[in-house]
Amino acid sequence: MTSIDEYMTGLGRRARRASRAMARASTAAKNAALDAIADAIERDRAELKDANARDLARARDKGHDAAFIDRLTLSDKALNTMIEGLRQVAALADPIGEISGLKFRPTGIQVGQMRVPLGVIGIIYESRPNVTIDAAALCLKSGNAAILRGGSEALECNAALAKLISEGLEAAGLPQDAVQVVSTADRAAVGKLITMTEYVDVIVPRGGKSLIARLMEEARVPMIKHLDGICHVYVDDRADLTKALNVCDNAKTHRYGTCNTMETLLIARGIAAEALPLLAKAFKAKDVELRVDAASRAVLDHARHDGALVDATEADWSTEYLAPVLSIKLVDGLDAAIDHINTYSSHHTDAIITEDHDRAMRFLREVDSASVMVNASTRFADGFEFGLGAEIGISNDKLHARGPVGLDGLTSLKYVVFGHGEIRN
Amino acid sequence: MTSIDEYMTGLGRRARRASRAMARASTAAKNAALDAIADAIERDRAELKDANARDLARARDKGHDAAFIDRLTLSDKALNTMIEGLRQVAALADPIGEISGLKFRPTGIQVGQMRVPLGVIGIIYESRPNVTIDAAALCLKSGNAAILRGGSEALECNAALAKLISEGLEAAGLPQDAVQVVSTADRAAVGKLITMTEYVDVIVPRGGKSLIARLMEEARVPMIKHLDGICHVYVDDRADLTKALNVCDNAKTHRYGTCNTMETLLIARGIAAEALPLLAKAFKAKDVELRVDAASRAVLDHARHDGALVDATEADWSTEYLAPVLSIKLVDGLDAAIDHINTYSSHHTDAIITEDHDRAMRFLREVDSASVMVNASTRFADGFEFGLGAEIGISNDKLHARGPVGLDGLTSLKYVVFGHGEIRN
Repeated sequence: MTSIDEYMTGLGRRARRASRAMARASTAAKNAALDAIADAIERDRAELKDANARDLARARDKGHDAAFIDRLTLSDKALNTMIEGLRQVAALADPIGEISGLKFRPTGIQVGQMRVPLGVIGIIYESRPNVTIDAAALCLKSGNAAILRGGSEALECNAALAKLISEGLEAAGLPQDAVQVVSTADRAAVGKLITMTEYVDVIVPRGGKSLIARLMEEARVPMIKHLDGICHVYVDDRADLTKALNVCDNAKTHRYGTCNTMETLLIARGIAAEALPLLAKAFKAKDVELRVDAASRAVLDHARHDGALVDATEADWSTEYLAPVLSIKLVDGLDAAIDHINTYSSHHTDAIITEDHDRAMRFLREVDSASVMVNASTRFADGFEFGLGAEIGISNDKLHARGPVGLDGLTSLKYVVFGHGEIRN
Repeated sequence: MTSIDEYMTGLGRRARRASRAMARASTAAKNAALDAIADAIERDRAELKDANARDLARARDKGHDAAFIDRLTLSDKALNTMIEGLRQVAALADPIGEISGLKFRPTGIQVGQMRVPLGVIGIIYESRPNVTIDAAALCLKSGNAAILRGGSEALECNAALAKLISEGLEAAGLPQDAVQVVSTADRAAVGKLITMTEYVDVIVPRGGKSLIARLMEEARVPMIKHLDGICHVYVDDRADLTKALNVCDNAKTHRYGTCNTMETLLIARGIAAEALPLLAKAFKAKDVELRVDAASRAVLDHARHDGALVDATEADWSTEYLAPVLSIKLVDGLDAAIDHINTYSSHHTDAIITEDHDRAMRFLREVDSASVMVNASTRFADGFEFGLGAEIGISNDKLHARGPVGLDGLTSLKYVVFGHGEIRN
């Protein structure tokens, strides 16, 4: 066993022990810990920024770009968001211990399901210190123990945050091992974390596609993971044009870099002559590059669209641009739209714009994606917008949690049986 | 690509296509298919028994034992059970399409969750032809496509059953590829099935521990799996003695070979002198071998227990006997019992016998097992006893389904959003 193996096994063993105490922790104790952590961050702003400054200096020396430095920076605004996030999670209802569906069976036993923590959650993320607090807060509130492994460039401020989390847990009488931050930058630590099935119940990776693809190769612990978001809006020939324009504009241009941004626009042939020129004009006004199939080009040429068009290739239908680029395709109608989406979508979020009830309901049922929408922007696919109160991530998986994952996604249901001495015949 | 790879990829591609049609199939069509399959089995009893006779002859030639031959045999009783099973699944409520929790959000959108099929289910089982029909029925009713891979010794009768399933699907206007039976005995087929994540959404292995351990090594497709059942009953010092005797006797001796049978009995020190001699007497009457810790032996010796006792070793606490053998340990009280169970249990099913409300509720909450019970026999941990109507298996996992898995376990929840043209600010 290497020393990294030993170190990680130690973290795992302590996390497993702490998870048992967390599973029976009272709501009051968990909330007190969250509040104490928020207070400590408030108090130690200066120290946190000092630690962060050392991380930032090293990151600049290594030549990281401005976007990286931005994500790594612990500004006052970032600290405020952390503090507010902790208070918000404290204010959420405690999901643990809820018993649902308790029913008597003919044998006399009463059977229901109790919501319980998963146990030990491993979170792997890049150099964004805010995730340290977000993830700790959600794991803590849901009664889990957490092992956090942030990007190596944030080691100093993550260590400083870990100290405050530990202090908050202790103040509330909870085990300090309930949240542990991996203190080594060695990559082997990640390899161990995602394979020690004995101590870790689930891994939540938060980061880019390349991180997740790498983890998928090696992980033996189940993951709640999010890959890409190739989201579609289908404008049906029974669409309301105003809704179509508003929703498509918002779905594409509200933010370009998010996973719930529209990447492909499908338009029913029957409404293309009317809708497509208006849509193209709106996108041109915002400098969105349009990659069109031949039929769309014909419609836009006929309408004398005043703007550049790029010919879409097969690769465009399966590309997540995360940029002011949109692919556009004409389809015969609902069936063709559903076929295209089920073939090319990343099963994240897809929407239909239509006034037709049957088509709306068919789209909802038949499109195989985590979030399916009628007459609403794909940008709504988000834990807060959906009312989950918090979000640990968005799951592209079908098992366990699907779509935005809130506190409930960090729990499972076990069966509880209330008897009176019943035996089986 | 080997020919097995090609063959399995072909099955996968066809299953994926069929799964889309199954996802939108009506309840009436699914029930009609189940009834048609039942009718066809009824009609072709003779042919099925002929195919089975050829399987049995080969199995006998290979020197398989009587228990194996028994499981492989398609008796009239086994055929009746299949037919009845199909009719029962047809009578169950269709889980697909149910929308729950639909709530308006301040933005104006309405968000809920819709129950949908998982997609393509791979079932891997041993030479028990009844599983072919059970698994096909549950996958079909839950709107999934299935790829079934039964034991190689049952190839002929599985092929005959596959023909009838296909006929039933066709009669109901459903795609025949919705249930496909792997027709090769080549082991490589299993290797491919459990790794083709593109075409298979979940694997349900039904079989012994060794099968599942082997699959766990290689699988890339998620599994709903069941390992061992090391189940405990804890007799608290506030137990009702009659309940304790009845439940412990039933939990151990109702059936020895099942996963929900008690393997370890924990007794609170405070009630041991009174309870243990009575329990030991009851077990002796049924020739159950008792493996006891030193404290239990002392109590039984003092009470002049008339029967052989074996000294328990550390290995006994983590052994699933599946036999008339029981390990017994004295514990200080509730905390020690919970500790022992959380350490040695396979997290399957554990029960407490107590009249104390707080202890009962603490046991339910703190024991980390799929089914936890108060004053009831562990033998109740079963899909039918819990009221699920059917059971595809019992899950030892925490993610997705936990405990007995019914139709709902073969489904997932996707978010549905009803809007009126809303956009995100």
